Amino acid sequence: MPDLKLVRAACVAVVAAAFAGSAAADEGMWTFDNFPAARVKAAYGVTIDKAWLDRVQGASVRLTSGCSASLVSKDGLVFTNHHCVVDCAQQLSTDKADYVKDGFLPATRAEERKCAGMQAEILESISDVTAAVNAASSGRTGQDFVRARDAAMSTAEAAACGQDVRYRCQVVSLYRGGQYKLYKYRKYSDVRLVFAPEFAASFFGGDPDNFNFPRYNLDISFVRLYEDGKPVATPRHLIWQSRAPQPGELTFVSGNPGGTDRMLTVAQLETQRDLTLPVSQLQRSELRGRLIRFSEESPEFKRIATDPLFGLENSYKVFFGRQFALNDKAFMDVKRAAEAELKAKVAADLKLAADIGDPWGEIAAAQAAYADHFLRFRQLEASAGAESDLFDYARTLVRAAQERAKPSAERLPAYADTRLPLVEKELLDAKPVDKPLEQLNLEFWLSKTREYLTADDPATKLLLGKESPEQLSARLVNGTTLADPAVRKALWDGGLAAVQASQDPLIQFVLRTDPAARDIRKTFEAQVTGPVDRAAERIARARFAAYGDAVYPDATFTLRLSYGKVAGWTWRGTTVGPFTTFAGLYERATGSEPFELAPRWVAAKDKLNPATVFDFVTTNDIIGGNSGSPVVNAKGEVLGAAFDGNIHSLGGDYGYDGTINRTVVVSTAAATEALGKVYGQTGLVKELTGR
Amino acid sequence: MPDLKLVRAACVAVVAAAFAGSAAADEGMWTFDNFPAARVKAAYGVTIDKAWLDRVQGASVRLTSGCSASLVSKDGLVFTNHHCVVDCAQQLSTDKADYVKDGFLPATRAEERKCAGMQAEILESISDVTAAVNAASSGRTGQDFVRARDAAMSTAEAAACGQDVRYRCQVVSLYRGGQYKLYKYRKYSDVRLVFAPEFAASFFGGDPDNFNFPRYNLDISFVRLYEDGKPVATPRHLIWQSRAPQPGELTFVSGNPGGTDRMLTVAQLETQRDLTLPVSQLQRSELRGRLIRFSEESPEFKRIATDPLFGLENSYKVFFGRQFALNDKAFMDVKRAAEAELKAKVAADLKLAADIGDPWGEIAAAQAAYADHFLRFRQLEASAGAESDLFDYARTLVRAAQERAKPSAERLPAYADTRLPLVEKELLDAKPVDKPLEQLNLEFWLSKTREYLTADDPATKLLLGKESPEQLSARLVNGTTLADPAVRKALWDGGLAAVQASQDPLIQFVLRTDPAARDIRKTFEAQVTGPVDRAAERIARARFAAYGDAVYPDATFTLRLSYGKVAGWTWRGTTVGPFTTFAGLYERATGSEPFELAPRWVAAKDKLNPATVFDFVTTNDIIGGNSGSPVVNAKGEVLGAAFDGNIHSLGGDYGYDGTINRTVVVSTAAATEALGKVYGQTGLVKELTGR
Repeated sequence: MPDLKLVRAACVAVVAAAFAGSAAADEGMWTFDNFPAARVKAAYGVTIDKAWLDRVQGASVRLTSGCSASLVSKDGLVFTNHHCVVDCAQQLSTDKADYVKDGFLPATRAEERKCAGMQAEILESISDVTAAVNAASSGRTGQDFVRARDAAMSTAEAAACGQDVRYRCQVVSLYRGGQYKLYKYRKYSDVRLVFAPEFAASFFGGDPDNFNFPRYNLDISFVRLYEDGKPVATPRHLIWQSRAPQPGELTFVSGNPGGTDRMLTVAQLETQRDLTLPVSQLQRSELRGRLIRFSEESPEFKRIATDPLFGLENSYKVFFGRQFALNDKAFMDVKRAAEAELKAKVAADLKLAADIGDPWGEIAAAQAAYADHFLRFRQLEASAGAESDLFDYARTLVRAAQERAKPSAERLPAYADTRLPLVEKELLDAKPVDKPLEQLNLEFWLSKTREYLTADDPATKLLLGKESPEQLSARLVNGTTLADPAVRKALWDGGLAAVQASQDPLIQFVLRTDPAARDIRKTFEAQVTGPVDRAAERIARARFAAYGDAVYPDATFTLRLSYGKVAGWTWRGTTVGPFTTFAGLYERATGSEPFELAPRWVAAKDKLNPATVFDFVTTNDIIGGNSGSPVVNAKGEVLGAAFDGNIHSLGGDYGYDGTINRTVVVSTAAATEALGKVYGQTGLVKELTGR
Repeated sequence: MPDLKLVRAACVAVVAAAFAGSAAADEGMWTFDNFPAARVKAAYGVTIDKAWLDRVQGASVRLTSGCSASLVSKDGLVFTNHHCVVDCAQQLSTDKADYVKDGFLPATRAEERKCAGMQAEILESISDVTAAVNAASSGRTGQDFVRARDAAMSTAEAAACGQDVRYRCQVVSLYRGGQYKLYKYRKYSDVRLVFAPEFAASFFGGDPDNFNFPRYNLDISFVRLYEDGKPVATPRHLIWQSRAPQPGELTFVSGNPGGTDRMLTVAQLETQRDLTLPVSQLQRSELRGRLIRFSEESPEFKRIATDPLFGLENSYKVFFGRQFALNDKAFMDVKRAAEAELKAKVAADLKLAADIGDPWGEIAAAQAAYADHFLRFRQLEASAGAESDLFDYARTLVRAAQERAKPSAERLPAYADTRLPLVEKELLDAKPVDKPLEQLNLEFWLSKTREYLTADDPATKLLLGKESPEQLSARLVNGTTLADPAVRKALWDGGLAAVQASQDPLIQFVLRTDPAARDIRKTFEAQVTGPVDRAAERIARARFAAYGDAVYPDATFTLRLSYGKVAGWTWRGTTVGPFTTFAGLYERATGSEPFELAPRWVAAKDKLNPATVFDFVTTNDIIGGNSGSPVVNAKGEVLGAAFDGNIHSLGGDYGYDGTINRTVVVSTAAATEALGKVYGQTGLVKELTGR
């Protein structure tokens, strides 16, 4: 958790640089088809041409688990963060073998193991489908608009990918509806874990050090792409560069920032500040407390809670930073000024003004509906089941069965034909289900739903009947057989008839309660999503008219390229250098969790070069989803994997300040040294370096 | 938890009535020496004279546990809420006898049992010491001002009470420094539990129903005042009225509202909104999660966590309501308008303006210092140790030993001579210490301190050394012997030498770390408390000048009287009636916690008159601390005990709206019926009713 003062003041500083419309120095998560090469040339004297872009794009990997990565050998080897595969390591573990705690270090390729649900995707092409989507949704409003737009998107996806199972096509709304682009990916559904260090090494310092710098984390891992049971040949990989980065060195981050809110209106930011974030954080905080206590109940509970607790605490810290950014008056004042500037530019152009209308006012008006429906939408639809996998299985089975009976374009978007393969993979891949955790999550969700909607709400009564959250969650988790992939497969294959005939209590629960979730979803789309998205399209048009294409779109978990340099920062008179070394790790260790060294690192201390650059920081503009992104130099060689932002970057969801926002990277120099001398991974080192 | 929409809209509504300076109809927590009898006469046609006020004051009881109560028999019998003694019932319980779950129903007076730490106080007189306090602090600033003022207050207390151990004297700052009044109480240090129902009856509906209405809670209990081992004779008691209240009936609440923030400046409210409340609520929420999980680990853990969890969830809900009030723009706009009005009145009077200066600006400027120091002040001083009794014992012993070596007026105010008797009682009264809970609390506090101050902060390092929060809390709790009252007594009597020589790990921990807490306390007093309090005095003067004495002071946990009437309310077209009945309880029961009937109530169903008025609501203006207050009619007879507010009243910390804010009361009619027919307490019924 950050010192609040830093966050507050950081946000004040943020405002100087961003939001005025066009991006400031080093700012931006640029699409590969609109990369500002001229800016880079002007600022750094380096030419980035199409061949360079194509090469980096072709070696950049998106992991459906929510991360980024890169190809680093000709044999399908993929470099990413440990925290991007910790979920996989957790799933491969048992009460006998804990790959999170002890690391996963197979001796041969034959022992590499598949990560359930994980799919790797490499972007092949981008094409513009804005006209087609706009034509379909033109003149529509509310839920009608949402449905027509979503249908047009899935239709375009189906047309582009056809039946070719090697590809995934996805239409992305960029600039909040200003553009619709079709992204075509080569996809790989068999992704296997190759190497993962111990959690004590990858996440040394734990939650207290998370988002801080100096850092000492070996947050690396490797996975490998397989097809037909064999490693995929990947000649277009990045070159692994084992030398340390240099101060001031130009760096690029190629990856998939998950989402930013830099283009939201002030009214939307106020809603986030006053309603969305507070409620979500309060719930996260309570769930965190339940999980922490749970993890203290036994070593086995600690083992199974490790990954969920890490994810939850990470999110908590991220949103804590965002909340405090939005609570900062100076920050909001700059947002207001930027909005006023754009409005003034629109008003000054009569033709444009007539075209644009008052989308800001429309969005502000929709915030009242948002406030009316948010809690119900959140509890029944958006966050239903909390983190319960079993609930997700049940809802996916019920909804897929209902939706697949309709034509693709009329379905809920998640169940359109082009989306079903990944839905099916995530549903049917075998992975362990930890029932004690499942019950904790379901009980929490039911309890909070009763709390926020009140015990007298019809939806609460529908969910609980005469049972308490404790009783109901126990009954559902103990009674369901959905943990068995064969059961899920039978229900998936059996379709609606099989689902409706199922005696599984969780399937029956979802069949009985899902109508309430669908109802609030409809209401929310009609009164909030529709009006807001419709208006946002026009704000995007206004922004293009005012600032041309010198703007980048909000992040959308699609491939982006940011540029920057290796550099520390100065804050309130204190300068933080850009590098840490192995020596610093040994100095920081206390012997107590989470500052306890892994035994292998204790043993290897004298073999390691203490001056090896461990982690470093750059000015690149990134956000969550960029984790695992290759950090490459001007030649396109990989220098490290981005794994975090510094504490000042937590308000980065809303804006970027190059003087203090930093990307935190684990160096390939450290990775090479550790793989060889700590982990004895000579084969992997040879595959990466040729030596 | 309330439906947020209600809270939001309720707060919008609040603004219509309050804040304009003088109080609106039924608004106000009035001091007995400035009660607006003329208003009551005008509104209700009832004359409240000095005799009436003296009689009610003489029967009104303050419990140092944080509640209110009333004398209801000539033998020292005191009527209050169950939730005001649940802590006592918890402490009297063991793993063999659970008086919280099963109720406490002694067969004879001989079995009435002392509540550890509880003191009852009856106000005898109020006198004005404003001149003396102002003379002492005049011309001083910062910490110097705070110390001089506090010393003058404790000097006045000592002068008024002398060595008479039967009395407690306390100087209270009213109107945020506008007046200083000396309250002299007759005190009773031996308070024994007489009757407590089962938690399932007193808190039926649990947290989901808390602050809601209709309600079905028998939130009553009785304690008795003892002196020299015998019940105290209390001829000046209230008459117990067993008839049900009537719609529209005039009601008074005589009790001790704990604190309100209605006179804070907008800058202070913004700090609460953006910093104080969010951080406190996030911590409460996580602790709540830890406690909920803890309570699920075993029946014994559930038993010992019952009272702490109730208290925590109650606070959480209160502050949730306050947060949403402050997040409401319309609410804050009215606060701004009221502040602007007062400023304008000052500016219009040149002499007044010269006297007052710009206290609003001074308070606003102090908010930056608040933001800088709040987290450190909170974690190291104000909320140190979280809810750990052992930590409190250790800090009290260490500080008392250090402070008692100084002259009374130079000590930390809590250790002035007039305050020491209660400090000593609370320290030395025997009560059970639940070590698993103690460790949970200490671990939580240490963990959050590391999180909020960061692992690199010197204070974090001072607290933890090389240990983790988990290790350190376990070592302290397992090693300390402070759970034994004899050990505490020896250290108290032994003074500084004994404390410094102690090998107790918790004493050593506090000796080592307390200097950091004292440091931030000094800084906070110098930069925040001093400037703010100094300025607030002048705002109070401005308010007196503008509005005369038609204003009431913010609540201060001192005796106040509010007036109102029995009335339901209408909200968004839905009307809620003023009464519930026993019949409604049986209808609402589901058989699952917290909507499960106590076995005695199941058994007694056919004996009870189902039409008995159970709980009712009035328009009285109250807040936490008023719990247990007698609700009396125009004759001064007791009709019930206030135990809650409705959901709309949660923003009442900042303002009152008579159209929807309601006090929730358990009726004496229900109490009489239940005592006789559910609990067989014929002796108690006879003592109350004479029959």
